[in-house]
Amino acid sequence: MIKIGIIGVGRMGKIHLENLSRKIKGVDLIAAVNPGAKGQKFALNYGVRDVSDDINTIIENSEIDAVVISSPSDTHSEYAVMAAQAGKAVFCEKPIDKSLKKASETIHVIANLNVPLMIGFNQRFDTNFAKVKTAISKGKIGSLRNLHIISRDPQPPPISYIKKSGGLFKDMTIHDFDMARFIMGCEVVEVFAYGNCLVDPAIGEAGDIDSATVLLKFENGAIATIENSRESKYGYDQRLEVFGSKGVIKVDNPLKSNLQMATEDGILLDHHLNFFMDRYEASYLEEIKVFVDALQHNKPMPVSGEDGLKAMILAKAANKSLKENRPIQVDTIKIN
Amino acid sequence: MIKIGIIGVGRMGKIHLENLSRKIKGVDLIAAVNPGAKGQKFALNYGVRDVSDDINTIIENSEIDAVVISSPSDTHSEYAVMAAQAGKAVFCEKPIDKSLKKASETIHVIANLNVPLMIGFNQRFDTNFAKVKTAISKGKIGSLRNLHIISRDPQPPPISYIKKSGGLFKDMTIHDFDMARFIMGCEVVEVFAYGNCLVDPAIGEAGDIDSATVLLKFENGAIATIENSRESKYGYDQRLEVFGSKGVIKVDNPLKSNLQMATEDGILLDHHLNFFMDRYEASYLEEIKVFVDALQHNKPMPVSGEDGLKAMILAKAANKSLKENRPIQVDTIKIN
Amino acid sequence: MIKIGIIGVGRMGKIHLENLSRKIKGVDLIAAVNPGAKGQKFALNYGVRDVSDDINTIIENSEIDAVVISSPSDTHSEYAVMAAQAGKAVFCEKPIDKSLKKASETIHVIANLNVPLMIGFNQRFDTNFAKVKTAISKGKIGSLRNLHIISRDPQPPPISYIKKSGGLFKDMTIHDFDMARFIMGCEVVEVFAYGNCLVDPAIGEAGDIDSATVLLKFENGAIATIENSRESKYGYDQRLEVFGSKGVIKVDNPLKSNLQMATEDGILLDHHLNFFMDRYEASYLEEIKVFVDALQHNKPMPVSGEDGLKAMILAKAANKSLKENRPIQVDTIKIN
Amino acid sequence: MIKIGIIGVGRMGKIHLENLSRKIKGVDLIAAVNPGAKGQKFALNYGVRDVSDDINTIIENSEIDAVVISSPSDTHSEYAVMAAQAGKAVFCEKPIDKSLKKASETIHVIANLNVPLMIGFNQRFDTNFAKVKTAISKGKIGSLRNLHIISRDPQPPPISYIKKSGGLFKDMTIHDFDMARFIMGCEVVEVFAYGNCLVDPAIGEAGDIDSATVLLKFENGAIATIENSRESKYGYDQRLEVFGSKGVIKVDNPLKSNLQMATEDGILLDHHLNFFMDRYEASYLEEIKVFVDALQHNKPMPVSGEDGLKAMILAKAANKSLKENRPIQVDTIKIN
Repeated sequence: MIKIGIIGVGRMGKIHLENLSRKIKGVDLIAAVNPGAKGQKFALNYGVRDVSDDINTIIENSEIDAVVISSPSDTHSEYAVMAAQAGKAVFCEKPIDKSLKKASETIHVIANLNVPLMIGFNQRFDTNFAKVKTAISKGKIGSLRNLHIISRDPQPPPISYIKKSGGLFKDMTIHDFDMARFIMGCEVVEVFAYGNCLVDPAIGEAGDIDSATVLLKFENGAIATIENSRESKYGYDQRLEVFGSKGVIKVDNPLKSNLQMATEDGILLDHHLNFFMDRYEASYLEEIKVFVDALQHNKPMPVSGEDGLKAMILAKAANKSLKENRPIQVDTIKIN
Repeated sequence: MIKIGIIGVGRMGKIHLENLSRKIKGVDLIAAVNPGAKGQKFALNYGVRDVSDDINTIIENSEIDAVVISSPSDTHSEYAVMAAQAGKAVFCEKPIDKSLKKASETIHVIANLNVPLMIGFNQRFDTNFAKVKTAISKGKIGSLRNLHIISRDPQPPPISYIKKSGGLFKDMTIHDFDMARFIMGCEVVEVFAYGNCLVDPAIGEAGDIDSATVLLKFENGAIATIENSRESKYGYDQRLEVFGSKGVIKVDNPLKSNLQMATEDGILLDHHLNFFMDRYEASYLEEIKVFVDALQHNKPMPVSGEDGLKAMILAKAANKSLKENRPIQVDTIKIN
Repeated sequence: MIKIGIIGVGRMGKIHLENLSRKIKGVDLIAAVNPGAKGQKFALNYGVRDVSDDINTIIENSEIDAVVISSPSDTHSEYAVMAAQAGKAVFCEKPIDKSLKKASETIHVIANLNVPLMIGFNQRFDTNFAKVKTAISKGKIGSLRNLHIISRDPQPPPISYIKKSGGLFKDMTIHDFDMARFIMGCEVVEVFAYGNCLVDPAIGEAGDIDSATVLLKFENGAIATIENSRESKYGYDQRLEVFGSKGVIKVDNPLKSNLQMATEDGILLDHHLNFFMDRYEASYLEEIKVFVDALQHNKPMPVSGEDGLKAMILAKAANKSLKENRPIQVDTIKIN
Repeated sequence: MIKIGIIGVGRMGKIHLENLSRKIKGVDLIAAVNPGAKGQKFALNYGVRDVSDDINTIIENSEIDAVVISSPSDTHSEYAVMAAQAGKAVFCEKPIDKSLKKASETIHVIANLNVPLMIGFNQRFDTNFAKVKTAISKGKIGSLRNLHIISRDPQPPPISYIKKSGGLFKDMTIHDFDMARFIMGCEVVEVFAYGNCLVDPAIGEAGDIDSATVLLKFENGAIATIENSRESKYGYDQRLEVFGSKGVIKVDNPLKSNLQMATEDGILLDHHLNFFMDRYEASYLEEIKVFVDALQHNKPMPVSGEDGLKAMILAKAANKSLKENRPIQVDTIKIN
């Protein structure tokens, strides 16, 4: 039985808490820490024994094997290090830190402590994308030549969020950078990015972009294209297509239903799912299951700290490319 | 808060228990009755307070507002009447009783007691089929002319099950009979059935059929076709199509993933879902939610005892048609 | 070089004429007969040498190897016999004659003359349906259990046409009867038909039906279902699905384009094709190619006179079933 | 009646000849010029009156209103100017000339002669792509933000062809450059291209690339992505997707049939079409029809010489970007 404590019972924390307390065998979620009463009550309702607002109730509890960190981003690094120093395995929501430098330092500290660390890139655990990875690994489409990712949110977040988000590449494309590395199974050597404001000028005034097309050149010569938009009137759009020497694999969007209606107006299918909570619901359970399974069987963590760092480096390269309007070699990106 | 007791914690009971204890607000599942220790332990694990092997702990508990009956079929009738006599609302898995006569008597007894009764035709609560109903109700495809239901199980049940099943029409087509009435929104006046053994001769030796095509003539002149098979090598096949004066609506099968792979061999999609536990998972939650909601807001039960009875009458008519090789008028079917 | 004469240059004749004169190698369309000047001019424009209104210019021309008969239905029988007596191979549009008796006599006369005869059931030569047949022949879906044909015209023909049509089963379902026999590769032993007027009461007043559901029981126990309607607001609907012990094959409708548009309203596909001239365009060329190829290489005719007759017998059985509201054994149908 | 002469009866010439002689009303194809006997015989078989190997039989024939030029690329420019100087309208296969400078000069000469000139970008006349354009023009998806074109040939041409092709961008991407301008309805301001040899090293040795990803930045800020490959094991792949402020429109590949087969292996669809002669067959007829229609009704040519030139300029910019690994502003591309 793996004993787990969770730090932060907000939107993501609630998902992890529900999954850990009810849907995974061999796990005992024994403690939850949250500053506010609401999150604490949520934890109590799910039968968590030890609920408090004091981080130390988890860190100092020697019973606890692993910590799930879903507190605000600017606390990830500190809590992850504390938990690691206490000898606990760490599951940490992305990003480890918004500063690449600090994130890097944190990862190295934890690596030196030799405790398992997994970063919460949940999309890797979506059934569809995971099956693409499996098919590629089995050689179904031969050697890879092109990857195409489309990722469009239904509507932009509030400007207040935009201002603190770190920018489109760090906030939104970060998932696609990780997905590209995951699917291709090798590293990016160069990044070229176009981006601008086509959705809302207020986003531009806040110093950000809302639309982007990013090219990633991989070490094997393959090119990945990422298309991002902060707004998609037809709903959340999350697709991926990999082209290889023997074939192509596509993942299309799941829809709200399988209805197909034909009338004089043509044939109408149902809508896209609303947003990531619907589209990726199952992946959140799956990622925690995989984390627990890795702990139970001493397997390597499926998403490492290094993975978290590399996606951040690609975001930095994309920002530089956008600013200088030229392709950026990834190995020129400085951590500091 | 609606207080509920559950009778029978087997395969279906576990689903209801999990849904009632964790996924619905305004409900308190306070008691569970099951003869065996395994089901009792399951209930305890989900936090049910009052767990026993004695039906009276539920019947005599005046706190309990409603009873969910998911015990073996031959106990449904008895328990339903007991619960109703104790003034409790009843959610009863189908069939109320395998005997049409006894089922009819049970329903009339409960009706006279004036307590709410809902029959567990879960497929009505599948998102896809419910959306078809809604679209029809809104007049999207005009007046209805044809309904086509395809329902194929992945593989036949054991012969031992077949022998006690009551036959294909009562055991399997019963869902499609209810679905046809639900979708068409009017009554069947005549039934014609073809059926034979194309899957396994042992099923024939057991006195049953494994393949059937049934026509239902509705009072508005529309014809429904039901295609059944006990075996489908490509997985569970559950489709429906309604043709009306303004258009057609189809429900296709959900697949295991949205992958599409194109190679020299053509384009390959993923598999069908395995069976009803995967295909209809969400509908089991939905039906109980709707039951609770009807109790909370004094709405009529969405699936009445009469609905349960009418599907059984159609099954009897189909058996008679099969035997006599002629169309059978539904109003000639005797309850006794 | 096969030398061909064509009798009748109306709607179907023009299609055959265009195909024979321009699109098939090894064929010389040397003569055309048509009563009216319009059809004659059409033939001249396509370079036919010998154009007249006299049937004997074809019958008596010893150069001519084969005759394509696309004149009005009530002349098919007479012209087919004349051509056969003159030793010419015959391609004859369906029906050979509206009277089953006369059609039967004609076929036997031609059979005794030992000349090749092909009936124009063009739908067998549609790429989609032909591929279904091939896949079945290769055992891709094992032994056959169910066939389902949907055939809906976009709108009913004029009442004047209905009155002379011979009724829905002879006029419209006849194609589906042939298709069912073609796909199943064995014979029908019993027919059950429901039919009524759901589209236009005027059709009922003219003594016909506009909607039908027909069941065909095959000698191997498989059941075919045919759904017909004289009206389909979403366009011409021609689908087919065969279920076998190893799998299922479906043919869906080709659409006007491959466009898919997603907006706030859901996902919209394009319209169905208008009618048979669009849907089956390629099959008309293919059937004549196959006829010519059979002549060139002394192969048996792919659609025999017997095939034409058997579809007519099924139509008669369906009419009898409709009238008597009972299943009709095919071997009780009398030719007279 | 528009009188037309055709110059060059090779692969493309045969298509134009067949279309002009048989499938378009109001046109008289009276003359064909081809150096070899084979093309001449082809023309005679289609009833062309005046067939020769002498270009002047067309240029000097004052009866002829328009000339279709489908001779080898290096003759386009000369013949187009000759025809224009003789006052004839010109339909010219792309490219006008492989040299951008010469192509530009030719176009200006013809423009000054004030005769209609249309360039054979047939893909604009594909039903699917034309419908996308119409939908966009009607505002169905609002203002445009992203365009994505996938264009993959089934297999690379011979190395001998590659060597004379002018390179991937001029030979293959040229269609996609034109399509991007056509769909977006505005001009490209900047080009960035990645390209390399992933298919066949021999192509690299011949100085060309076989795989490319090109970004086009349009004056309205929208970004188009083009993915090209000289090899696609699953067949010819020609897709397009436009994303706008109100929705998205996709064009998927037509397949060889509409068959869908489900077995234990999953669901199998048919293959892609082989190559452009199958995929774009209808568009070749449509483009000539539109050319003739423009002549008949004095409409502007739907694809101008300027359009031909602009696609060539984008190809040159892409080559420069590839060489210098940086985005290239289109207005810095020199014609000389």
